[in-house]
Amino acid sequence: MTISKKNSYKLLYILDYLNLKILNHSNITITNISNLENAKKNELTICSSSKYLDQLKLTKASACIIPKNFINHVPSKCYPIISENPTIDFIKVLNLFYKDQQIDRISKNFLYKKDLIKKKFKNIFFGNNFVCEKGVKIGKNVTIGHNVIIKNYSLIGDNVNIGNNVVISNSIIKKNVNICDGSIIGKKGFGFKFHNGKILRIPHIGKVIINEGVEIGSNCNIDRGSITDTVIGKYTFLDNQIQIAHNVKVGEFCMIAAQVGISGSTVIGNNVSIGGQAGISGHLRIGNNVKIGGKSGVIKDILEKKTVMGYPATEFRDFIKKNKG
Amino acid sequence: MTISKKNSYKLLYILDYLNLKILNHSNITITNISNLENAKKNELTICSSSKYLDQLKLTKASACIIPKNFINHVPSKCYPIISENPTIDFIKVLNLFYKDQQIDRISKNFLYKKDLIKKKFKNIFFGNNFVCEKGVKIGKNVTIGHNVIIKNYSLIGDNVNIGNNVVISNSIIKKNVNICDGSIIGKKGFGFKFHNGKILRIPHIGKVIINEGVEIGSNCNIDRGSITDTVIGKYTFLDNQIQIAHNVKVGEFCMIAAQVGISGSTVIGNNVSIGGQAGISGHLRIGNNVKIGGKSGVIKDILEKKTVMGYPATEFRDFIKKNKG
Amino acid sequence: MTISKKNSYKLLYILDYLNLKILNHSNITITNISNLENAKKNELTICSSSKYLDQLKLTKASACIIPKNFINHVPSKCYPIISENPTIDFIKVLNLFYKDQQIDRISKNFLYKKDLIKKKFKNIFFGNNFVCEKGVKIGKNVTIGHNVIIKNYSLIGDNVNIGNNVVISNSIIKKNVNICDGSIIGKKGFGFKFHNGKILRIPHIGKVIINEGVEIGSNCNIDRGSITDTVIGKYTFLDNQIQIAHNVKVGEFCMIAAQVGISGSTVIGNNVSIGGQAGISGHLRIGNNVKIGGKSGVIKDILEKKTVMGYPATEFRDFIKKNKG
Repeated sequence: MTISKKNSYKLLYILDYLNLKILNHSNITITNISNLENAKKNELTICSSSKYLDQLKLTKASACIIPKNFINHVPSKCYPIISENPTIDFIKVLNLFYKDQQIDRISKNFLYKKDLIKKKFKNIFFGNNFVCEKGVKIGKNVTIGHNVIIKNYSLIGDNVNIGNNVVISNSIIKKNVNICDGSIIGKKGFGFKFHNGKILRIPHIGKVIINEGVEIGSNCNIDRGSITDTVIGKYTFLDNQIQIAHNVKVGEFCMIAAQVGISGSTVIGNNVSIGGQAGISGHLRIGNNVKIGGKSGVIKDILEKKTVMGYPATEFRDFIKKNKG
Repeated sequence: MTISKKNSYKLLYILDYLNLKILNHSNITITNISNLENAKKNELTICSSSKYLDQLKLTKASACIIPKNFINHVPSKCYPIISENPTIDFIKVLNLFYKDQQIDRISKNFLYKKDLIKKKFKNIFFGNNFVCEKGVKIGKNVTIGHNVIIKNYSLIGDNVNIGNNVVISNSIIKKNVNICDGSIIGKKGFGFKFHNGKILRIPHIGKVIINEGVEIGSNCNIDRGSITDTVIGKYTFLDNQIQIAHNVKVGEFCMIAAQVGISGSTVIGNNVSIGGQAGISGHLRIGNNVKIGGKSGVIKDILEKKTVMGYPATEFRDFIKKNKG
Repeated sequence: MTISKKNSYKLLYILDYLNLKILNHSNITITNISNLENAKKNELTICSSSKYLDQLKLTKASACIIPKNFINHVPSKCYPIISENPTIDFIKVLNLFYKDQQIDRISKNFLYKKDLIKKKFKNIFFGNNFVCEKGVKIGKNVTIGHNVIIKNYSLIGDNVNIGNNVVISNSIIKKNVNICDGSIIGKKGFGFKFHNGKILRIPHIGKVIINEGVEIGSNCNIDRGSITDTVIGKYTFLDNQIQIAHNVKVGEFCMIAAQVGISGSTVIGNNVSIGGQAGISGHLRIGNNVKIGGKSGVIKDILEKKTVMGYPATEFRDFIKKNKG
């Protein structure tokens, strides 16, 4: 668990806190918050877009914040919380459970003296000025560069190599991963709403999971998920200056060239190659074996095996036809 | 004052230094350099583009470097310095006043020992390896990450949170600002001219001003102004890997997604949203409540409330029409 | 020499190691690996693209890995190694010679105590937490910021200024260069192949060479070459967040604005200006005095003195014509 503090609240307490009407009496206790797909019994979730109605029908959550017109899609074991502004109300509940996850602050529980770190982690080699928070776990044969900071209960697998000036928080880094200089993994994502002239910040309670054999270039940013995790699949390679937003899932054996940006909650398949400076909008699905040309701007889903290019990205032959002569 | 050293020079000395003709005798002493809008009595400024003729007519500067054909627009209390190459001559004067502002070097006056810093700043919490130059001022309840460097008379307001590996110089950071890991605020801008086979560097004597409640993501760059300041308005949120060039003004309650670049001297209104990877050329004006789509390339002014997209950016409906079918 | 370890191998041993047929008996010893242009006697090289056939005809290498149909272009003093997959076989040979250059790890031979560094480098001024590997050489009047790391036999010339949080490895930095905060110079490039469900990493044995008077902005990445060097020409200026991939050559007096990306092995002439966020594909040639507009996507060679813009980039007047009305 990378995020450790939470309380439980009665559902009726939450409705009252949100100033929402109580439809039916309920004794449910809400113990945590999750997304539609992963929510379990006694957890609260949200469905605000018709894109996710199929997931709503199958959710195991005990309560779900929805707009009024989704009511017929809510499963019988799930309490429907009807809201005029589901996202705002959901953020409010997140802030009720996770007040301290709005802004990343440093903890007071860190080690920085070489001998104490050596005592705790016997089988690693680390450079100068390594800072490691107390809840962090590190495997065998790990090499850690200078000025590295590892925070918030992150787990580092065996044979991982970490470059210099890297910051890792709220992350699970599996074995044989290579992270190059200056990358920042696991920071909170870009999530907030302007509401009635105020800022509502979205607490980020997800993690970053980087699977076996991945390589992350220099000066990359991989933000942690809001209520789910950000995931990079096995043996995927990232070049420098890449931005991966919160909740993104990248598949296995992908190749992502420099300066690519992937917006929040987009899902990328396996064996996908993405050319330099391409950008992919949020909440999209990119199929397996897709090739995306350099500098493309992808604004809709792409079926598997397609090759696309352009802004907006279209099939490669159309891009060529459009731009010839 | 973030930039501390300057001398005064007689106007006639400056004309001689530039190898320019003396039109009329003058006893004026030039005490400083500024831009058209902010220049005061006894200050020297420049007007080299017809875009700024309206400002020229109203300037309070005591001298202004201009091309010959602007002479009728110079106010009577301002001495016109006619130059065949106004920008080059202006840079030469800047270098006369501010020789040491061409390149950012570290100062010898810094604190790095924990107990000395604690003694100076009693009400802050800071991580490992914090370096703070002596002229810096820091407010109450400030949290500062590991490996942070604060330089050149920067002021940090109350309740500010600074992530790890952040460098701040020549900046005023107002209260409740959050700056994430790896961002570099207040570095000199990209300003120089190739002239007669040599490089003329432009000293940067402006600051960065970050107003109340702003959030800056990770690995962002906000360069300080050349002769004016770079300003981020209240409650504006920046995602990761954003580049804000010298002299840019961003308004209040703006939302700027990852990997956006804003070129020098552009002015952005309030409540503007800018999608990921968009780029905005220099010296433009973007009105209030404008929406700029992801990856757009904005190369001209945008009136308020418009929604634009594309490269070059056009009104959204034209972008859609052009790209359908 | 930035890369120090290598052995020699008999050519017949290498053929056997690659499981390739021996065409003619040979007694050649291979002492090193290089590119077509720079390879000397007793060195092995590769030619896998018809783009480089002219260089193949002139190579001084003693052996060259080629596809079968290039055989008639191989000079008589060069042993042709015919391969069904030249790139894969070449990577295998690189890994035979340079096993330890696949991943950048920190060395154990570094200095970090202030008094030891002062004793070694008498004529420099450095900030807090400077880490310097033992083989590094530094000239006179060099200023080095806080948290800087210099590695792998890098050479730093006279009057160089290095900002904070900079990492330099495998590099030659000539005199009067200015490198700003957070840039990473000399990291290995993005080079690997997926082959039979495994990753083959390409060892990077080249350097980065930054010539006299260059300025590198903040948070830039300049990767070192694979088998040749990455080179930045004299008095070229780079803004922030720029990505220069392995083997790129940039000419003299170029001006490269923020967030530009240049892909591997591209060659840029002198006096070239590149607008912000432009991207240039790999293996291209950009002539002298070319101007590339902001956000352009360059996907083919550009002749000297041309002005181009757009995605794909075309001559400027065509870009204007296409986008008017």
